[in-house]
Amino acid sequence: MNAAQDLLQSTGRHINSDRLWQSLMELAQLGATVKGGVCRLALTELDRQARDKFVLWCEEAGCTVSIDGVGNIFARRPGRNPQLPPVMTGSHIDTQPTGGKFDGCFGVLAGVEVLRTLNDLGIETEAPLEVVVWTNEEGSRFPPCMMGSGVFAEKFSLEQTLAKTDVNGISVGEALAAIGYAGSRPVSGHAVGAYFEAHIEQGPILEDERKTIGVVLGALGQKWFDLTLRGVEAHAGPTPMHLRKDALVGAAEVVAAVNRAALGHQPHACGTVGCLQAYPGSRNVIPGEVRMTLDFRHLEPARLDSMIAQVQQVIDDTCQQHGLTFELTPTADFPPLYFDQSCVDAVRDAATGLGLSNMDIVSGAGHDAIFLAELGPAGMIFVPCEGGISHNEIENASPDDLAAGCAVLLRAMLAASMAIAQGQLAA
Amino acid sequence: MNAAQDLLQSTGRHINSDRLWQSLMELAQLGATVKGGVCRLALTELDRQARDKFVLWCEEAGCTVSIDGVGNIFARRPGRNPQLPPVMTGSHIDTQPTGGKFDGCFGVLAGVEVLRTLNDLGIETEAPLEVVVWTNEEGSRFPPCMMGSGVFAEKFSLEQTLAKTDVNGISVGEALAAIGYAGSRPVSGHAVGAYFEAHIEQGPILEDERKTIGVVLGALGQKWFDLTLRGVEAHAGPTPMHLRKDALVGAAEVVAAVNRAALGHQPHACGTVGCLQAYPGSRNVIPGEVRMTLDFRHLEPARLDSMIAQVQQVIDDTCQQHGLTFELTPTADFPPLYFDQSCVDAVRDAATGLGLSNMDIVSGAGHDAIFLAELGPAGMIFVPCEGGISHNEIENASPDDLAAGCAVLLRAMLAASMAIAQGQLAA
Repeated sequence: MNAAQDLLQSTGRHINSDRLWQSLMELAQLGATVKGGVCRLALTELDRQARDKFVLWCEEAGCTVSIDGVGNIFARRPGRNPQLPPVMTGSHIDTQPTGGKFDGCFGVLAGVEVLRTLNDLGIETEAPLEVVVWTNEEGSRFPPCMMGSGVFAEKFSLEQTLAKTDVNGISVGEALAAIGYAGSRPVSGHAVGAYFEAHIEQGPILEDERKTIGVVLGALGQKWFDLTLRGVEAHAGPTPMHLRKDALVGAAEVVAAVNRAALGHQPHACGTVGCLQAYPGSRNVIPGEVRMTLDFRHLEPARLDSMIAQVQQVIDDTCQQHGLTFELTPTADFPPLYFDQSCVDAVRDAATGLGLSNMDIVSGAGHDAIFLAELGPAGMIFVPCEGGISHNEIENASPDDLAAGCAVLLRAMLAASMAIAQGQLAA
Repeated sequence: MNAAQDLLQSTGRHINSDRLWQSLMELAQLGATVKGGVCRLALTELDRQARDKFVLWCEEAGCTVSIDGVGNIFARRPGRNPQLPPVMTGSHIDTQPTGGKFDGCFGVLAGVEVLRTLNDLGIETEAPLEVVVWTNEEGSRFPPCMMGSGVFAEKFSLEQTLAKTDVNGISVGEALAAIGYAGSRPVSGHAVGAYFEAHIEQGPILEDERKTIGVVLGALGQKWFDLTLRGVEAHAGPTPMHLRKDALVGAAEVVAAVNRAALGHQPHACGTVGCLQAYPGSRNVIPGEVRMTLDFRHLEPARLDSMIAQVQQVIDDTCQQHGLTFELTPTADFPPLYFDQSCVDAVRDAATGLGLSNMDIVSGAGHDAIFLAELGPAGMIFVPCEGGISHNEIENASPDDLAAGCAVLLRAMLAASMAIAQGQLAA
């Protein structure tokens, strides 16, 4: 254990920044787009090539690779004590149709770089380590998102998941078989000693606050709704204002209310109307119907419900005032999540030990770590992404920030391995 | 002239109410919707079928039919003196995407019924009569609206009009050729002795005041704009409220401002946002762009401009506040219009002579008559529509009110023909 303890006492990053960057750039060739992004949908031929590369790199790093029934790939580096549950890390290598080079891939390749660095330094950990590629995190080809980690955490049944189909009617099971990644390892029942996931922030906060590392405390709860407002469509000229039932005038009040509710429930509140369509959509016809989506996020369940109640009151009042009717349908409900305190501390201690500027942050988006947190202590490490832009071909991150995030991951995993060995970290 | 004078001295309607209604119902079959409305966009195959029917009916009524370069159809019934400029009537047979059976079609078929009635009575008029179908009054498929009458009145150039395209890139010229209505008659330079247009009110005033005939004094001025707001599209989860540039939040303030400005400039003020589209239109992506239309109407030019200035100020302030940019493009500008006094009097005298309850009224909508008023004396006849609802599949009007409006049209046209012959009506 001396080498690992020495590393944690030092101030050096130890990881090979160039090697990490080269691996990221090499993986990004598979599905590279002309605009500099990546299109590598889950379980396609390009995904197979990326998976093969990951497997090759992990085997070269001395790992044993196994694949489970939903195609999750586990690269295991033995520990001194094979009885201990593994310290895991990972993310995904599938992308959005117009995705970037870093979303997901950074977390996977930071894990690979941790393996390589430990080999370079000749460090043997107490607990085994595992680097995981989770199948279909994006959900772009096969909904829902976070599919592989969801099956691993028993949130989704394997059978139903394998039966999900893409727009062409191809099932997950068929696609897995076609690319040779329908594995035999059981999908569930595995102990998780700890799980860390490094990820670009996908938001602008770290850049705005000029911090290198985001210590992720948890993830916002989310509640989504579909809202339809109905009035009476009528000719825009001859219909006097006081006799109108204009669904768009009502919808505008709801958009303002969603924004106002989120501003009034800070910190950690988001409210978004992403879709809004007015019907019939003719410039001289008063809109008789508006369909819109509402997306509410908050870290505290009671505050999340308070935001929603505030907007529901506005919907009631607005419909009353403008003679409209409405239908409000819930479409998604994810409770807020707080990561394990010792994992959060391990990430913060690692950043501080490396002299990296850092701040506590909350994830507004979903990640595989959210499902892993149900199986064992989990934490996340965020690094800045340029302009806060992600799910976009121009997604970008600096090599130095990525290296910093990888160095934090190395330390957090080593610390967790020691804590597990000492019985100080338990699911 | 005795037969015509006799008719004007009588109190009978003379027109065939059932025949008018049957023709309206027959035309409404072309593009009939399940909700009882009509979807017959300009220059489609359905429009061709409706045009063919009009041409057939007019030829059966002994008219000579000619078609001009923008597809306007002129059915001419000879007068005793072919040197006199014609007394014209007409409207349109294209509809909104979810339109009704009467908007436009009533004016055209009331004109056809006038022809048929004169034939039945064996009345030869002094001046020739013309019943016209104006191309694309609605502007739903090809902006701008009132296209055919606008070209006839030299408000729009033929060349530019033929080059206008629909959302699929099909031009007006191509669409005209495809349905066989690219005619050879010159589009302009025709004398207009007088022009009358019968139309459903498309508003609730006549019904509310329990009057059968609206004597139309003039029309509200209209100014239309396309507004694009641009912010930054970003992931709805990880992008905190204070760092957003949400184009839809800005757009909602503009919708509210348009409504507020119209309410604050009563009477005779209307403000409508008919189209609003948010891009990219994904439920967990903050809208980076919104495209919307603004429609302002008022009877007084200065008050119209005051409404618009008030909204422009809100657009400036909103963009400043939310970090947006905007583009505001005028798309239509029709000044308020007062119809020719002798035509207005002819309509009122006809209603009074028939013992029909009537009131002076102002048109909130645009009509082909507004362009025709630039070429000669013009007037309009309104009849009630149920609930004031138009541009809607449930648009409805009573057979008796439509017959009353048609009888007023017959008298007004006969009176104008005599006035023209006597040199008492001049452009």
